[in-house]
Amino acid sequence: MEKTIIVNAKSKTYNIEIIDHGLKKLREKVQTVWSPRKVAVITDENVGPLYANQVQRQLNAGGFVVEVLTVPAGESSKSWMNLEKIIQQLAEKHFGRQDGILALGGGVVGDLAGLAASIYLRGIALIQLPTSLLAQVDSSVGGKTAIDLAAGKNLVGTFYQPDLVLIDPTVLLTLKSRCLVEGYGEIVKCAALVGGDFWQLTGQIKSPQAIMRNANALIEASVRFKAQIVAADETETRRRQLLNLGHTLGHAVEQAAGGRLFHGEAVAIGLYQLSRLFEQKKLTAVGVTEQISTRLQAVGLPLSDDELGTTDFYRALKHDKKIKQQQLTMIYLKKIGQPEFYCYPIKQVIGWLQQELSQKKS
Amino acid sequence: MEKTIIVNAKSKTYNIEIIDHGLKKLREKVQTVWSPRKVAVITDENVGPLYANQVQRQLNAGGFVVEVLTVPAGESSKSWMNLEKIIQQLAEKHFGRQDGILALGGGVVGDLAGLAASIYLRGIALIQLPTSLLAQVDSSVGGKTAIDLAAGKNLVGTFYQPDLVLIDPTVLLTLKSRCLVEGYGEIVKCAALVGGDFWQLTGQIKSPQAIMRNANALIEASVRFKAQIVAADETETRRRQLLNLGHTLGHAVEQAAGGRLFHGEAVAIGLYQLSRLFEQKKLTAVGVTEQISTRLQAVGLPLSDDELGTTDFYRALKHDKKIKQQQLTMIYLKKIGQPEFYCYPIKQVIGWLQQELSQKKS
Repeated sequence: MEKTIIVNAKSKTYNIEIIDHGLKKLREKVQTVWSPRKVAVITDENVGPLYANQVQRQLNAGGFVVEVLTVPAGESSKSWMNLEKIIQQLAEKHFGRQDGILALGGGVVGDLAGLAASIYLRGIALIQLPTSLLAQVDSSVGGKTAIDLAAGKNLVGTFYQPDLVLIDPTVLLTLKSRCLVEGYGEIVKCAALVGGDFWQLTGQIKSPQAIMRNANALIEASVRFKAQIVAADETETRRRQLLNLGHTLGHAVEQAAGGRLFHGEAVAIGLYQLSRLFEQKKLTAVGVTEQISTRLQAVGLPLSDDELGTTDFYRALKHDKKIKQQQLTMIYLKKIGQPEFYCYPIKQVIGWLQQELSQKKS
Repeated sequence: MEKTIIVNAKSKTYNIEIIDHGLKKLREKVQTVWSPRKVAVITDENVGPLYANQVQRQLNAGGFVVEVLTVPAGESSKSWMNLEKIIQQLAEKHFGRQDGILALGGGVVGDLAGLAASIYLRGIALIQLPTSLLAQVDSSVGGKTAIDLAAGKNLVGTFYQPDLVLIDPTVLLTLKSRCLVEGYGEIVKCAALVGGDFWQLTGQIKSPQAIMRNANALIEASVRFKAQIVAADETETRRRQLLNLGHTLGHAVEQAAGGRLFHGEAVAIGLYQLSRLFEQKKLTAVGVTEQISTRLQAVGLPLSDDELGTTDFYRALKHDKKIKQQQLTMIYLKKIGQPEFYCYPIKQVIGWLQQELSQKKS
């Protein structure tokens, strides 16, 4: 299977290519967008040993000069220290404005390498080669780059579009089940926003194996939707905020859990809990929450967590980036495929959650 | 005098306001672009004591909550360490997406604060309030932000346009003469690119005092020209490179001099030397170099430096950001007001310079 999705962002137009065994076509695909140049392949200690050699051989055969830069695996690599190290290495190896960075890895590598590409020499060329399901459906699409601060995730970053995103679903076969399932959390979120056939398709996924069997269709539907949104609103002024469905409570519980929950798991919890609360409020149609929970539970995604409603959870919620003048904008579903904005004072949101979440706990 | 110049950059349209005693109108001007919010005033140890109180009072009166962040004066403040510190402070003080940064200072503060604004939360609002002549005519206009690396100046940065640039020429009265004259180096470069009345005007400037007397006209002409260029080419793909006239040799000699030369002084040297070399080559009209040297010498700007032609000079030149596939693009003047591109292999440029500069030395 080979599908091309065109992203028409305000700052740039580029292709997302979904290709089974796409890694084997890397040279050809890179050559469609890049003339021969130096390429820094940025990867991590998990993904590098699996694919870096293959990537390097392909690029060398295409006349590219390759430097492989490896960071430790895991969220803690999205740091100032690693950003500075990468840029230091680019400068030492005399990377110029015409050279490029290829991000080979999951969301951490994509976010970090993307930020480095966007600020080195005020921006050099970038290709994303996402290797986790979460990165393939979410973080590699749309040009968000970031590192974390002690005060919170993704507090430093840029909007910076790549020249190409190459998605090879067959690399997912090497993923541990929990990582595959995590990515599916973001897919269910997308499907809930889109509705229709996409939502029906998620209704048929009853196991992690079924995610893998349907990976191409699930990735394509997610990426098409995200590309549409990014084309309409590259820098998240309004419409792109729809993608934050499930993320408000999700980010807070993820931060409170301090690394114990994966991002996609936290999104699953946020998606379910927010739907439950808005269904009680009669803003979300009856039955939506059950449809969501059925899909999440079918693959073993969590619906709740002990951190929900703790002091740490509320502290994280109060510092949500989306709070503007004390108002928090949440996204809820009127019904499946019909997202709406709900803007409410953060203090009252917290009061309401305290009441609801403690009722549930007691 | 009050002049408004509109910058129509691809990413954003905004005003540059040149206003005598503009600092006294700060509140009113900021209110035209910003609703009440938190504002981080970033300044340095020289400029802060002169103006930070006044800026804070004005902003407070407009309903803004102000935090003043001060960095040491001088180029060495354009560092990862200061960037990280500023962003750390923004996060600790819970600056949100709707808050803003006001850069109060010369080029160092503008570059550093601009970069912080462009990457904190993927970009928050920015106002530039340049207080040196160099910053007023050059670095505050056009959205270039940067910090330095050990390997070279401005190797990390972004293109990020502010919401407003407020230029108050009366603040130049507190500048030391050498700083005023330095800024004039960039003005002569602009005038040489533009020609006509602007070039005539620089012909009448015979002393540092005359720069001050004509500051408004000189600033306006420089800024109008730069705004035009930035509107045509925000990210320096081609036309914006014209502004690099004098900068290729200038950057190299500045770096070799290790802080002894000011940027505008290095540009003056680069402008004169390149013109001399191209006049010898018969690519620049006879007499252009003399017109340039007359203007630079009239205010005490240097035409040469001991570092020209040293090993350090050539090392810096070889790592020029503008080298693409071993080709260096230089800008020269066919005649005053008629800049041209000259693209040539870096190796041969160096050979030619070695011959010419050593002849001059011997």
